[in-house]
Amino acid sequence: MALVFYSDSDRFEPWRDALTAAVPDLEVRNWDEAGDPAEIDFALVWLPPQGALQRFPNLKAILNLGAGVDALLKDPSLPKGVPIVRMVDDDLAKCMAEYVLLHVLRCHREQPALDAQQRAKQWRIVASPAACHRRVGVMGLGAMGGEAARHLLAVGFDVASWTRSAKPMPGVEGFHGAEGLAPFLARTEILVCLLPLTAETRGILDRDLFRGLPRGAYLINAGRGGHQVEADILQALDEGQLAGATLDVFATEPLPADSPFWTHPKVTVTPHNASITNPHSAVRHVVESIRRVRAGEPLRNVVDPAVGY
Amino acid sequence: MALVFYSDSDRFEPWRDALTAAVPDLEVRNWDEAGDPAEIDFALVWLPPQGALQRFPNLKAILNLGAGVDALLKDPSLPKGVPIVRMVDDDLAKCMAEYVLLHVLRCHREQPALDAQQRAKQWRIVASPAACHRRVGVMGLGAMGGEAARHLLAVGFDVASWTRSAKPMPGVEGFHGAEGLAPFLARTEILVCLLPLTAETRGILDRDLFRGLPRGAYLINAGRGGHQVEADILQALDEGQLAGATLDVFATEPLPADSPFWTHPKVTVTPHNASITNPHSAVRHVVESIRRVRAGEPLRNVVDPAVGY
Repeated sequence: MALVFYSDSDRFEPWRDALTAAVPDLEVRNWDEAGDPAEIDFALVWLPPQGALQRFPNLKAILNLGAGVDALLKDPSLPKGVPIVRMVDDDLAKCMAEYVLLHVLRCHREQPALDAQQRAKQWRIVASPAACHRRVGVMGLGAMGGEAARHLLAVGFDVASWTRSAKPMPGVEGFHGAEGLAPFLARTEILVCLLPLTAETRGILDRDLFRGLPRGAYLINAGRGGHQVEADILQALDEGQLAGATLDVFATEPLPADSPFWTHPKVTVTPHNASITNPHSAVRHVVESIRRVRAGEPLRNVVDPAVGY
Repeated sequence: MALVFYSDSDRFEPWRDALTAAVPDLEVRNWDEAGDPAEIDFALVWLPPQGALQRFPNLKAILNLGAGVDALLKDPSLPKGVPIVRMVDDDLAKCMAEYVLLHVLRCHREQPALDAQQRAKQWRIVASPAACHRRVGVMGLGAMGGEAARHLLAVGFDVASWTRSAKPMPGVEGFHGAEGLAPFLARTEILVCLLPLTAETRGILDRDLFRGLPRGAYLINAGRGGHQVEADILQALDEGQLAGATLDVFATEPLPADSPFWTHPKVTVTPHNASITNPHSAVRHVVESIRRVRAGEPLRNVVDPAVGY
C-alpha cells in the first residue's frame, strides 16, 4: 500500500511523518521517488502538473491538500472514475474564519485609514458603530463560509449569505440563486467571497456586481483568483464604488511585481495565506479517507466534477 | 430640573436632543450657558476642568461620559458626597471588544508584517496557527474586559485573565493579585490591558512586567496612558522582548508629533478611539440614572473613590 505526495507549497517531511505514524503499513513516497507507478494507491496532492496523475493505473483516490479543486478539475487527463476528496479540515476552516473576521473588522473599524493617519502623524478620532450596525455579506456557505459566518455572528455583525441553492443558517439572512443576488448585494456593506470556483462563479466579482453594492462598500476575496475581474476591481476602487479591497487570491500567483494591487492605497494584498493546510491537524482526514478505501466504505467530501466542487 | 454638559470630545447637540426626547422636563444646558448654578441637578461630563464642578451647590449626581474616571477623581475639589456614575454602555463595551479582537487577530495573524511585505512587493507565505493555539491574556475583567474576553473565547483563543481579586469566568483561566501576575504573564503571548487606572495599576506596564512575558509577546493597551511606562515599551520593543505594541492611549494625548511611537516599525498608534460613547445607545443609561435620583432609588455603577473605579 503506497501513497505519492505532490505539492510546491507544502513540505513533504511533516506529511510523511504524520501519515507513517498513523498508518504504519502505508509507504509514503515523494513525487520524484514514486517508484513503480502500479504500486501507488493514493495521491496526496496540491496543484500537480497536468497529466501527471494518469501514470498511476491503480489509483484508488486523489486526496487534495486544500479545499479548492478547480485547478485539479481543469486537467482533462484526470483518471476517470477515481474519486477526488476535498480537504475538509476544522483548522483549515477556522483559520479561514479568523482571516475573514480580521479583515472584516479591519474594514469595519477603518484600520487602513488609521494606518495612513499614523504614517502622517495625524491624530483624528475615527468613530465606528458597533458591529450589529454593520451589514456583512458572505458569498458561499460551505465549510469555509459557514465557519466564517459563525464567527461574524458571534461578534454581532448583521450577516447575510448568498449561495447557489437555498442554504438556511440560523441568524443569517439567506439569499440564493440569480434572483437573490441583487437584494443580497444591495444590503451588503462588506462583501466576503468564499465561493467555490466553478463555471458559474468564474469572474463573478465584476463591474456589474460591484455596481449592485451600496457605494463605498468593501470587498474581501479569499476564494479564488478566478472569481475576480481584476481590472474591474481597480476601476471600482478608483471610482469610489468600492472603498477598499482585501485580496488573498489573484489571477496569477505569486502576484507579479508589476501588478497595480501592490501599491494601490485602497488594496490590501495577502499572499494566499488565509488558510493553509497544517499536517498536524489535517492528517486525520487523510487517514480517514485511506481507512474508508481499505474498508470498502464510501468516501466523504468527494468532489462532484459535474458541479465543480 | 437641569443638567449641565461638558466635553471636549463629545458633541453637545446629539446629547441634548437624545436627553430632551427621553426626559421632556429636563433642561439640558451646555457648559458655557449653564445659567444659575443653583438650578443644576446633574452634570454629564468628560474631563471637566479641575474645580469646575464645585460651583454647583445642588448637584445630585456626576454622570461620567466614559468608563474611565481616573482623571475626574484627581480633582481634589470634587463636591463631597455627590455620587459619580461610570458610563456602562453595552455598545461601549462591544466597541471595545471589537477593537481588542481586531488587534489580537492582527498580532495573531502577523498582519503588520504582511503590510510591510506588501510595501516591499514581497510574496512570502506567513502561516499562523488556529486561534486555539494562541494564548491571550486580558488584564481587567470589568464591563470592557469581560466583553473582550467573551469575544476572544467565541473565536477560540486560549484566554486567561488577571484581576485585582478573584473573578471567575467560564472558559477563562483566572489569575489574580500580586502572586498571580507572574504565572499569568508567563503563559501570555498577546497581552491586553483593560484595567481601570488606580494607584495600584499606574505604571504597571513596565520593564519588569514585559520581562515576565515570553520573548516576542505582543502588547495591546486600550486601558489608560497612565498604565504604561512609555520608555520601557520602546526598550522592550528594541530588545525584541516585545514583538509589537498596539496603543490606543498615551501619557499625553493627542500624541505629540515628536513621539517615537508614530514612526516605530513595531508600533500601531490609534487615536484613543477604541471605544467612544455614542449618544444613541448610551442615553438610556444617563436617563436611568436621572430617573433613579428622582425616584430616590439607589444609583447603579457608582464609583468608589477609595478604590478608584
